[in-house]
Amino acid sequence: MSTSPDPKALASGVLAGERRALARAITLIESTRPDHREAAEALMHELLPHTGRSVRIGITGVPGAGKSTFIESFGLHVLEMGKRPAVLAVDPSSPRSGGSILGDKTRMEDLSKDARAFIRPSPSGCTLGGVARRTREAMLVCEAAGFDVIVVETVGVGQSETAVADMVDMFLLVLVPGGGDELQGIKKGIVELADAIIVNKADGDLAAAAARAARDYKNALHLLAPASPHWTVPVLTCSALARSGIDEVWATIASHHDTMDKAGALAERRAAQAHAWMWNEVSETLLQSLRDDPRVELMLPEMERGVAAGRMAPGSAARQLVRTFRGQR
Amino acid sequence: MSTSPDPKALASGVLAGERRALARAITLIESTRPDHREAAEALMHELLPHTGRSVRIGITGVPGAGKSTFIESFGLHVLEMGKRPAVLAVDPSSPRSGGSILGDKTRMEDLSKDARAFIRPSPSGCTLGGVARRTREAMLVCEAAGFDVIVVETVGVGQSETAVADMVDMFLLVLVPGGGDELQGIKKGIVELADAIIVNKADGDLAAAAARAARDYKNALHLLAPASPHWTVPVLTCSALARSGIDEVWATIASHHDTMDKAGALAERRAAQAHAWMWNEVSETLLQSLRDDPRVELMLPEMERGVAAGRMAPGSAARQLVRTFRGQR
Repeated sequence: MSTSPDPKALASGVLAGERRALARAITLIESTRPDHREAAEALMHELLPHTGRSVRIGITGVPGAGKSTFIESFGLHVLEMGKRPAVLAVDPSSPRSGGSILGDKTRMEDLSKDARAFIRPSPSGCTLGGVARRTREAMLVCEAAGFDVIVVETVGVGQSETAVADMVDMFLLVLVPGGGDELQGIKKGIVELADAIIVNKADGDLAAAAARAARDYKNALHLLAPASPHWTVPVLTCSALARSGIDEVWATIASHHDTMDKAGALAERRAAQAHAWMWNEVSETLLQSLRDDPRVELMLPEMERGVAAGRMAPGSAARQLVRTFRGQR
Repeated sequence: MSTSPDPKALASGVLAGERRALARAITLIESTRPDHREAAEALMHELLPHTGRSVRIGITGVPGAGKSTFIESFGLHVLEMGKRPAVLAVDPSSPRSGGSILGDKTRMEDLSKDARAFIRPSPSGCTLGGVARRTREAMLVCEAAGFDVIVVETVGVGQSETAVADMVDMFLLVLVPGGGDELQGIKKGIVELADAIIVNKADGDLAAAAARAARDYKNALHLLAPASPHWTVPVLTCSALARSGIDEVWATIASHHDTMDKAGALAERRAAQAHAWMWNEVSETLLQSLRDDPRVELMLPEMERGVAAGRMAPGSAARQLVRTFRGQR
């Protein structure tokens, strides 16, 4: 894509459900070239009226929880119901073909072979903000292309769980049965983002342990996570490998969507997310401009060292940086 | 304080432990007048080398947990040990003399009467960022004035718990005994900020219930909150009213401080806090300038409505706002 594509033509292709147009639209969105950004903006403007009609699901989990197997089983179940799933990823740590679970599509072989499904690895990009922004927009493009269920997966690096929870309707945490130390791999605060907890690998030798783990989590959640006025966080068990329990996961998602929608909480959550997204982008763009300012670049390393070492007051350093950036000194 | 005070003279007074200088220094810090901001910056510059030697404690809790009684008992215990406590508050919701727990000093009558202690209500200010900034600086002023233990209290409005956790060495959550619904008043994510949980009101009829609640929390924490490599979150019981168990609270704080200090985690936490504080201030200052820009002010309401209603793409709205602010269009 060396020249900027025509946004209107691309939008028509996406709306017509053309797979190639969809892939090109997302590539355009992921580009950082200024003329591509302009075209992407025009494209989003065309597609926006056709977005909002999918169920947006976020998924994270401990390493080894079998997230990719879970997403594949879940995606196949969605297909069986006559609905079309799209799977996106937020993984700011890895380049396109790197460590991302979705970089290796062979892990979701059956799902990726199905022409009605769409799988897209994490965009490359150094900052979480950049990756999150492009995934949000890719989600909207998928909606405009007619996908019914969007799954946004994160491998849980840095603050990516919060970024994903902030763009979906429902956030799932996938765990494995274990001895009470299941959450050692989960960062602080993640459990309280979850709208549902799923204990995977509830099969064979682990079936009893999975049921026990689910019961323990249920008790702990009752004490620790206050229910939203509309929703109590459930704990489910399933086996992605044996494809059992996936129907209950879907039933829970459908029930959540329905409950939140009827209570007006779904529209509210999406409006709040869009509002926060706008302000995050404003903030990120401004901070990036400040960092890119050559005068700021010159003074920043010494200031960061001074502040961290306690030699310089953070407030005063901040004011100096902003004054320099705004050319007031 | 109509004219700007001399920062050097004020700093000398603070360092000499003069109570009037301390109060005037904090008032200066809380002022939003540009010439006062300049003077406050110079004051902080003078005081900075004399800061960092206190134990910084954050406290939050459910309504009715008896936070003010707890802080009073705790402060009196600190005094008995020959150390000097200062109590500050972060309450962005209430004007100076309003709903803040510390607005009404009579709730901490014994502590406020003691000349070795210092109690300061929340600064007035509309944004949490502004209140947090001034409280952080007030904390440093108190350290320079020779206080050994700084308690920063929050009533838990908005994001104030995170702001307080981000400025202290240790964050305490004060709860009451109850029937498993103790946390209904606590917002999501707060439990996972806590470095220790304290079940207050462990006296009389409630003693047994308090012990039971502590046991339940301990079990739940084991499942839900991963321990830092250096610290396992303890659950303590106490009665602020009967002044029992307060010595153990202090012993826990001292042990936390010691453990984190020896592991290098205390210095690390403070350096990371200072670094984040600087960037938060940069970000807040830039956003405020953008909001104050008359061209931005003109277009903002329609954009916020459009984004929340899904008529306008958040990313595109953000780029338009930044372009307008930076005078590029």
